[in-house]
Amino acid sequence: MNSTQDAHFDHISQQFNVELDDIRTQLMNMGGMIEQQLQDAMQSLKKGDSSSAYAAIKMDDDINKLEMSINDQCARIIARRQPAASDLRFIIAISKAITDLERTGDEIKRVAANIIKLVEEGATEISASEIRNIAKSVSGMISDSLTAFARYDVELAYAVVKRDEEVDEEYKTAMRALVTRMMEEPRSIATSMNVIWILRSLERVGDHAQNIAQHLVYLVKGIDVSHATAEEMQATIDK
Amino acid sequence: MNSTQDAHFDHISQQFNVELDDIRTQLMNMGGMIEQQLQDAMQSLKKGDSSSAYAAIKMDDDINKLEMSINDQCARIIARRQPAASDLRFIIAISKAITDLERTGDEIKRVAANIIKLVEEGATEISASEIRNIAKSVSGMISDSLTAFARYDVELAYAVVKRDEEVDEEYKTAMRALVTRMMEEPRSIATSMNVIWILRSLERVGDHAQNIAQHLVYLVKGIDVSHATAEEMQATIDK
Repeated sequence: MNSTQDAHFDHISQQFNVELDDIRTQLMNMGGMIEQQLQDAMQSLKKGDSSSAYAAIKMDDDINKLEMSINDQCARIIARRQPAASDLRFIIAISKAITDLERTGDEIKRVAANIIKLVEEGATEISASEIRNIAKSVSGMISDSLTAFARYDVELAYAVVKRDEEVDEEYKTAMRALVTRMMEEPRSIATSMNVIWILRSLERVGDHAQNIAQHLVYLVKGIDVSHATAEEMQATIDK
Repeated sequence: MNSTQDAHFDHISQQFNVELDDIRTQLMNMGGMIEQQLQDAMQSLKKGDSSSAYAAIKMDDDINKLEMSINDQCARIIARRQPAASDLRFIIAISKAITDLERTGDEIKRVAANIIKLVEEGATEISASEIRNIAKSVSGMISDSLTAFARYDVELAYAVVKRDEEVDEEYKTAMRALVTRMMEEPRSIATSMNVIWILRSLERVGDHAQNIAQHLVYLVKGIDVSHATAEEMQATIDK
């Protein structure tokens, strides 16, 4: 814990501390649901059985509800406490992070729906290793971006941003292979398109994890790094 | 102007009114840049000349800078004014709207890059009418969502959400036609993929316009309609 983090938990009102701590805990819960949702979708790909992918789709409702509930909580705290600037920055960073998590849930829902199509066509082997690799990477990114939030760890946030560059490369390579495949086997086009949408959504999940990491850097450093290169971001962190 | 809007411009400090008015004006400016950017990208498709699409890509930098500058301005107002809950809701709604506009700019940049590829391949006729139709729809949605913001017009915000449903249908129809085309003419696959990415990005632009409309409804009505159906949203507006 560094001084910035401590500052959020040093209010005269003990109750206010509890409230701020609670929204951070809820953010972590929401992150846990997202990780479970992605794991469920991937389980279907592995087993060739669509039931857990359906569970992943259904979970999106709960994730949406949790997002609305946390947002409500943030709004109530702001209305009641009229928080000082640093607390407000904390609340706004949480609020932005849950927006990204909610959109992550939407992307994973799309992934699950496309995996169901692959299962129905008995085509789960197509590009399964590429899908699994990228899914593993972005799942780690989500997890790390939230750990960074929990620990005010800007170095870990930087690692998430760096990792997104690798994911983008993996994604491009997989995409080129798929287009080549479609040209060589036109009969595979419909199935290949499903795989393309899956990869595209997973790549977006990585982007959202990167956004969450950037919200944390803004919270801790007060500098907007959303358009910074990895090097510029490192320079900001070292300040 | 309704009472909610008036409330934002009735502060003892005249200077505070000016500051709030200014961030709204900047939001409108950012919207104007986005509309220009999309128009430039479409111009290249129409003329078969990539120069204005390059201009659209370059414009993304200016849009990003404007986003950061408005966000800074919002942060400074919050720090200095310690605004009351209703003003804060206004500032947060603006801040969320510019995040959506910034991501819209990213999507249009992708559209422009793919249009350049079509121009280079001399393939601008492929699906040009579908691209133009969807571009026209989503450009109108962006414009209307900002007008809704300027006028606190929840009915217009609702119309934007309804229109997004139509765009989603247009998009699905165009996508099915493209997949069929790829199967019939495997040689067209690489080009068709460019068109698919263009349509996908335009569909996302529509989603962002819908988000902006929903931020406005939240600002005016205090109810989160981001997961509401069009009918539920209408019920909220009628309250």
